Amino acid sequence: MMQIIITGGGGFLGQRLAKALLKSEEAFTELLLVDIVEPANPSADGRVKCLQLDLAQSGAAESLITQNTSVVFHLAAIVSSHAENDFDLGWKINLDVTRQLLEACRHTKPGIRFVFSSSLAVFGGDLPETVTDMTAVTPRSSYGAQKAMGELLVNDYARKGLVDGRVVRLPTICVRPGKPNLAASSFVSSIIREPLQGETAICPVSPELALWLSSPDTVIRNLIHAAKLEESEFGGWRTVNLPGIGVTVNQMLESLEKQTDAETLARVKFEPNEAINRIVSSWPGTIDNSRALALGFQVDKNFDVFIEQYRKQDLQQIV
Amino acid sequence: MMQIIITGGGGFLGQRLAKALLKSEEAFTELLLVDIVEPANPSADGRVKCLQLDLAQSGAAESLITQNTSVVFHLAAIVSSHAENDFDLGWKINLDVTRQLLEACRHTKPGIRFVFSSSLAVFGGDLPETVTDMTAVTPRSSYGAQKAMGELLVNDYARKGLVDGRVVRLPTICVRPGKPNLAASSFVSSIIREPLQGETAICPVSPELALWLSSPDTVIRNLIHAAKLEESEFGGWRTVNLPGIGVTVNQMLESLEKQTDAETLARVKFEPNEAINRIVSSWPGTIDNSRALALGFQVDKNFDVFIEQYRKQDLQQIV
Repeated sequence: MMQIIITGGGGFLGQRLAKALLKSEEAFTELLLVDIVEPANPSADGRVKCLQLDLAQSGAAESLITQNTSVVFHLAAIVSSHAENDFDLGWKINLDVTRQLLEACRHTKPGIRFVFSSSLAVFGGDLPETVTDMTAVTPRSSYGAQKAMGELLVNDYARKGLVDGRVVRLPTICVRPGKPNLAASSFVSSIIREPLQGETAICPVSPELALWLSSPDTVIRNLIHAAKLEESEFGGWRTVNLPGIGVTVNQMLESLEKQTDAETLARVKFEPNEAINRIVSSWPGTIDNSRALALGFQVDKNFDVFIEQYRKQDLQQIV
Repeated sequence: MMQIIITGGGGFLGQRLAKALLKSEEAFTELLLVDIVEPANPSADGRVKCLQLDLAQSGAAESLITQNTSVVFHLAAIVSSHAENDFDLGWKINLDVTRQLLEACRHTKPGIRFVFSSSLAVFGGDLPETVTDMTAVTPRSSYGAQKAMGELLVNDYARKGLVDGRVVRLPTICVRPGKPNLAASSFVSSIIREPLQGETAICPVSPELALWLSSPDTVIRNLIHAAKLEESEFGGWRTVNLPGIGVTVNQMLESLEKQTDAETLARVKFEPNEAINRIVSSWPGTIDNSRALALGFQVDKNFDVFIEQYRKQDLQQIV
C-alpha cells in the first residue's frame, strides 16, 4: 500500500490539497487526513480516510506513521498570532510535533518523503531589499522561530537519510475562504473576502504595507511539486522560498474596486493594530523567486487572479 | 547574592572563563561551575563552587537555576564529530538541555542574562565568499543544526523578555591545551600542540584548507564582553559572529616552523580523513568581523600570537 498523510488535514490547505491529490494522476492507495478535530471528508473517493488525533499526545506520531506511509505533508501548526499569545502551545505543536513525526518516520521506515510547510514568517527585522534563499532567518515572532527550527530539523534528518525531507516556505495566502483565524495575516484575506460577501472588514495595517502573496491554487500546486521533485534537485539544502508576488494593501484594494465597485471597497475600514502590524511588517515584501522557479515551482500572474480564483471557486459556495 | 553559572564548567573554556572572571573586576558572590563530571576548582577563591550534574536528567536544569542566578554562560555541548556519530545524544544535550535551561530561567526569574556559545558550524554548504551576520545558516552537521536551533530559541526567549539572551558564534579555537577531543576541528589544535610537545600529529585535511580561528584568550574576553553589553546594543537580534582570523593550514605550519624548527614541523603528518574533511570544509574560512568589532568584541592580531599564547600559558604546565 502507498499511503499519503496530511496533518492539518481538516484545515483549509489540507482539504484543498486532498482534493487536488485525488484529482491528480499521483499513484496512492490511501489518503489519510488527520487533525485535532475530525477532518471533513472532501470527496466520495474510497481512498480517503479521516482521523481525529491530537498529535501533541504522547505516542500519537508513532501511531500515525506506519510501514505503509510513503509521503507526509506536515501542515498542522499553531498560526502566528496564536503562537505569539500561547507561547507553550506554539512550541509544543510547531516544534515538538514536527520532531516527533520525524522521529516516527526515522524509526518506522527511513526515507519517507516529508514535506514541511514553513513560512515567510521565518524572516524578520532588518532585511535586505531582496530576500533570497541565502538570507539569514531572524524571526520576530515565536511562530517564525518555531518554523525556522523545524526547517533545520527536517534538513538534518534529510541529510542523515532518515527522511526524504522537503521544506517549502509559504507566502501569505490570499484569498482564504471561511472565517478570520488567529494568523496575524488573517486580515489579508478578510479585506477581500468580507467585502465580496457584503460584510465589513478591518485592515489593521497601513495601506502602503507590502505583502508577499500566493493564491491557494498556486500553493497547492507547489506543495505537490515539492513532493515530486527529485532529491538531488535541491542541491544539499532542502528549504525553498515558494514563489510569490509583492503587492501593497493599496494595490489589493485597487484590484478589488476594479473588479467590483466603490461600495464594495468602502466596506474596508482601517483600524491600526500595533500587535498585528509588528508581526506582519517584520515579514519581507519581496523575495527573489529565481531558485524556486528554476526548480519548477509556479507563481501567480498578478493580484487580479487572486480575486478571480476566490470568486470562481469559493464565493458561490457561501453566498 | 549574585551568582554566575558556567555549564561545561569542567571543560577547557569553562575553566579558563572561570579564572578570567575571578581575576576580573566583575561583581559576583558565587561562581558555580557545573559539568557532567565534577569540575576541577580552578582557584582558591571562596566564591567558586563546583557541582557534578547531568543536565540531561529530568529536573536538573530547574534545580540549577535559582533566584540568586544572575548570569548563565551555557557552554556545555556535545562537540561536532561526537554529535554526528551519536545523533540522539547530540539533540538531547545541544538542543533539549538548552531549552530546559531557558525554561528554568523563564520560570524562576525572567531576565537572567544567558550567554549561549554557538559556533561557526551553523554555516555550511555553498557559502558566499564572505559570510556575514545576515548569511543564512545551512549547517552540514547535526552539531551545526542543533546550535542554529539553540540560537533561534535564545533569541525568541530574549525577544519575549523571558531571558536576557546573547548568542556568540565561536570561531574554531586554537591552541586548545590537553588531549584531542571529538570535535571535527580537534586537529586544528593538535597540529600545533603535539609538535611543540615533541609528539606526532595527524592533519586530516588539505594544507590549503582555510580555517577561521580565535585564540582562547580572545574568546574568553569576548564571552565576558557578550555578558556585559547593553541589551539595546544588539539591535533586535542577539546573535553575533565573534571575530576571527582566516588562516590556511599551510600558514599555521609556516608560523610553527618560524617559531621552532624544521624538526618540529616534520612531526605533522598528512592523512586525509573524509568524515572530518566533510564537516570542517563545510565551515566558512572568512567571516565579516565588522558588526562584532563595532560591538566592541576583540580580534587576534595574527596566527603567530596563537602559538606564543599557548607556549606562555599552557606548554610549561605540561612538559
